[in-house]
Amino acid sequence: MSIVVVGSVALDSVETPFGKVENALGGSATFFSVAASFFTEDIKLVGVVGDDFPQEHVDFLQSRGIDLTGLERVSGKTFYWSGRYGDNLNVAETLSTELNVFENFAPKLPPSFRDSEYGFLANINPELQMDVLRQVERTDLVVCDTMNLWISTRKTELLETIKHVDIFVLNDAEARQLTGKPNLNKAAKEILNYGPNRVVIKKGEHGAATFTKTSYFSSPAYPLEEISDPTGAGDTFAGGFMGYLASTGDLSESSIRKAIVYGTVLASFNVQDFSLNRQRSLTRTEIEARFHEMRAMTQF
Amino acid sequence: MSIVVVGSVALDSVETPFGKVENALGGSATFFSVAASFFTEDIKLVGVVGDDFPQEHVDFLQSRGIDLTGLERVSGKTFYWSGRYGDNLNVAETLSTELNVFENFAPKLPPSFRDSEYGFLANINPELQMDVLRQVERTDLVVCDTMNLWISTRKTELLETIKHVDIFVLNDAEARQLTGKPNLNKAAKEILNYGPNRVVIKKGEHGAATFTKTSYFSSPAYPLEEISDPTGAGDTFAGGFMGYLASTGDLSESSIRKAIVYGTVLASFNVQDFSLNRQRSLTRTEIEARFHEMRAMTQF
Repeated sequence: MSIVVVGSVALDSVETPFGKVENALGGSATFFSVAASFFTEDIKLVGVVGDDFPQEHVDFLQSRGIDLTGLERVSGKTFYWSGRYGDNLNVAETLSTELNVFENFAPKLPPSFRDSEYGFLANINPELQMDVLRQVERTDLVVCDTMNLWISTRKTELLETIKHVDIFVLNDAEARQLTGKPNLNKAAKEILNYGPNRVVIKKGEHGAATFTKTSYFSSPAYPLEEISDPTGAGDTFAGGFMGYLASTGDLSESSIRKAIVYGTVLASFNVQDFSLNRQRSLTRTEIEARFHEMRAMTQF
Repeated sequence: MSIVVVGSVALDSVETPFGKVENALGGSATFFSVAASFFTEDIKLVGVVGDDFPQEHVDFLQSRGIDLTGLERVSGKTFYWSGRYGDNLNVAETLSTELNVFENFAPKLPPSFRDSEYGFLANINPELQMDVLRQVERTDLVVCDTMNLWISTRKTELLETIKHVDIFVLNDAEARQLTGKPNLNKAAKEILNYGPNRVVIKKGEHGAATFTKTSYFSSPAYPLEEISDPTGAGDTFAGGFMGYLASTGDLSESSIRKAIVYGTVLASFNVQDFSLNRQRSLTRTEIEARFHEMRAMTQF
């Protein structure tokens, strides 16, 4: 199955207790598609960068087999985010967000992208997510993410968008914010009432859980003693999740569960280094080894 | 195997968004031994109550087969705790703590208690926990709990006590407080360096995890949409955990994992009603059904 992903491609400056990087490769579509590329070869990225976007990053994404026909390059600066994490690596302090060329991003799917079987709507404005849905010709599986900003400022539009998606992925704080329900199980049930068939809740160090109206699955996080940089963990999770599904074409409960665990494994590698640096040397053998460790640490 | 448990027997007044109770049965030794009583018949309780302690509570504990030879009754009032939980049921606001007869509690094990194979030291002053250890004649398995108060005020004594225990059970906030390490996996490794062979970390809605130097197991919580009253969940978890182990006498990794899940199941029932009310009608059949649900929701 091919996957089309629409989201940000960015340059990030990040500081954590373990070091810092400046103008490193980032963005939701980037983390997602690189993670998915470990499972499937047919990934089509829709995004925008400025004329400052280094060719080496383009080369890296192409080396992962990602189709960049939908990556617009416009005059101006690339979306830039700078943030800092303290000892509590669960919470980022944003130092600056410069939307730059991303401010007027109007996703346009090239004709060759419109019949992708699977679509991932990264955490962009829900009105743009709807625009994308109007452009796709088939939607065997649409997965959608969001962020606190859109829950605060575009809640009506977000609720409209998620009526049209199969799987809604968000983190625990966002699930509580969106529903006003502090109990996560109740929040998940409420979100299912909004429309999606399935909700996946990312819980950082506490793992991930997925709910339908009749099923529940919970996976722990892979236990790491050091997190170098959590940036992109959520998008990497989604990329591993959806990349695995695309590689099998199997959307059964059993396959979804394995996909959750592969997403967890990919995210665990991502946070062990800054930017996408760990992914540059990551192998499928390492992924499989950690997947089997996950099974060993949850069986009873 | 018989279990001797040393801890508090209390009267609690608790208010949550779902209701309130006044002077209800509580205390760490109470929650622990009632939970353990669903698995094993030989439970010996050491504690103290005042002359206001209702006979009906004594009758209830005896109806669960708990040996109360070690329950002292002295002149004065029973340990009283009153607390309130808001929408965030993870955090109790203590309204008052009246130690009363518990203030001068000096645990004395009746001779018939001293050869119990298993011992549970509930969250009392670590100096008293050491006193108990000096009184026991055999220690096939000693499990110890603690609380934030002792980490703040008796850290040296606590570190001395846990050198002598096999399994140290504490919650995530306590593990971070004790070690000064925000990363829970690192905190667990640090605690293993203090002496115990195994640490069990209770994470409330996020389940529980157990670490040895060479193994790791993680269990989610049982997903509940409503928590009536979280009081006693940790002690109930420990009671289910240790009760199951005592029923098998098997301390293998595989058995410990099942015990963690039984502890989780018992805690999930406990929080569905106030005080120990849910336990009054709970059956082993219901426990087994939820245990099998736990397996179904974690397998992939």
